[in-house]
Amino acid sequence: MGVYDISLPITQNLVTWPGDPVIELEKVYQLEQGDVATVSRINMCVHSGTHVDAPGHFIAGGKSVDELDLTILTGSALVVDALEADNINAAFLEKIDIPAGTNRLLFRTRNSELWSDAQQMFTEDFVAISEDGAHWITENGIQLLGVDYLSAAPFGDSNPVVHKILLRKETIIVEGLNLLNIEPGSYQLVCMPLKIVGADGAPARAILIDEKIE
Amino acid sequence: MGVYDISLPITQNLVTWPGDPVIELEKVYQLEQGDVATVSRINMCVHSGTHVDAPGHFIAGGKSVDELDLTILTGSALVVDALEADNINAAFLEKIDIPAGTNRLLFRTRNSELWSDAQQMFTEDFVAISEDGAHWITENGIQLLGVDYLSAAPFGDSNPVVHKILLRKETIIVEGLNLLNIEPGSYQLVCMPLKIVGADGAPARAILIDEKIE
Repeated sequence: MGVYDISLPITQNLVTWPGDPVIELEKVYQLEQGDVATVSRINMCVHSGTHVDAPGHFIAGGKSVDELDLTILTGSALVVDALEADNINAAFLEKIDIPAGTNRLLFRTRNSELWSDAQQMFTEDFVAISEDGAHWITENGIQLLGVDYLSAAPFGDSNPVVHKILLRKETIIVEGLNLLNIEPGSYQLVCMPLKIVGADGAPARAILIDEKIE
Repeated sequence: MGVYDISLPITQNLVTWPGDPVIELEKVYQLEQGDVATVSRINMCVHSGTHVDAPGHFIAGGKSVDELDLTILTGSALVVDALEADNINAAFLEKIDIPAGTNRLLFRTRNSELWSDAQQMFTEDFVAISEDGAHWITENGIQLLGVDYLSAAPFGDSNPVVHKILLRKETIIVEGLNLLNIEPGSYQLVCMPLKIVGADGAPARAILIDEKIE
């Protein structure tokens, strides 16, 4: 069984969205200092690293992350080769011939290469979903969407239209995936966000498992 | 497909281990206050709620949580009825006839009832693994152990012998499960801790899936 970890390693250096709280890690107790155990504390924005957006992130009164359906967060997913794309728009989505019945879609773009540099600064010109791309996704039965930078929407989208189109339809958005070493194709996705009550999102661990040959 | 969420809901009221940092949730930005999005921050001990202990928690130089094997954290698991047990000792483990080949073991004890009270105070007399129980587990091929209170070891175990027996053998310990509504039997476990680099543990989302009838 092939298991691929597509989650970003959480460190204090991991790049975060401008304006969001940065990641803080502290050893509150330490064996090396004579304590009985080592015990760490983490302070982070729920949209740091690999994470899930809930509708409540952009829609007032929208579902929170603990209310998301686990049967959408797990199951068959298609990893799409979007290495040549500058943005994921409806024309691109039409062109790539997504098989009927696909309901989880992860885009491997050039963004994934950014994660090779653990000390990277925030990048503004990452590949993202366009407005007509977001409409295409909601109109074609996609229930979960995964992207390989920190937002599904382009930077500077001050009217957050892309997120709103997706989240109004309760499309689950998984952001901050690292798909660098993932061959395009079908996998079983397991994406498990922390069950934070009432929150607009949550950090998650996400893996892909090779589909069984039956 | 039956999917059972066995993770504790993370709130500011969730009981935590005495002396550990408590859970803090804050909305840094809020739609309701005119912000573009709602964005939350969480501050928590990595041993809060449903979480995984890594060897480094009690063993100096031991593996950290990001180094744990995902193929042990996912797979066939046996939920054992331990509702009548006051502690999980070797005699109990012998008596219940665990099938050969079992390598993930979750104990449903009376602890799980405590989670019905979201406002509960910390309980000292929870059901835990005894020293000879820990030896039995490491000697019988169990690679992952799940318990339904905040520690696998009894309270007041100031020499943390139970954890050390388990973690020296790199048995993965999952703590803070809620097994109240889970029938004893075989399931597929999916336990996904956050990938926190170098940490002694991590909060996790854990689910059980009904095994396929083949």
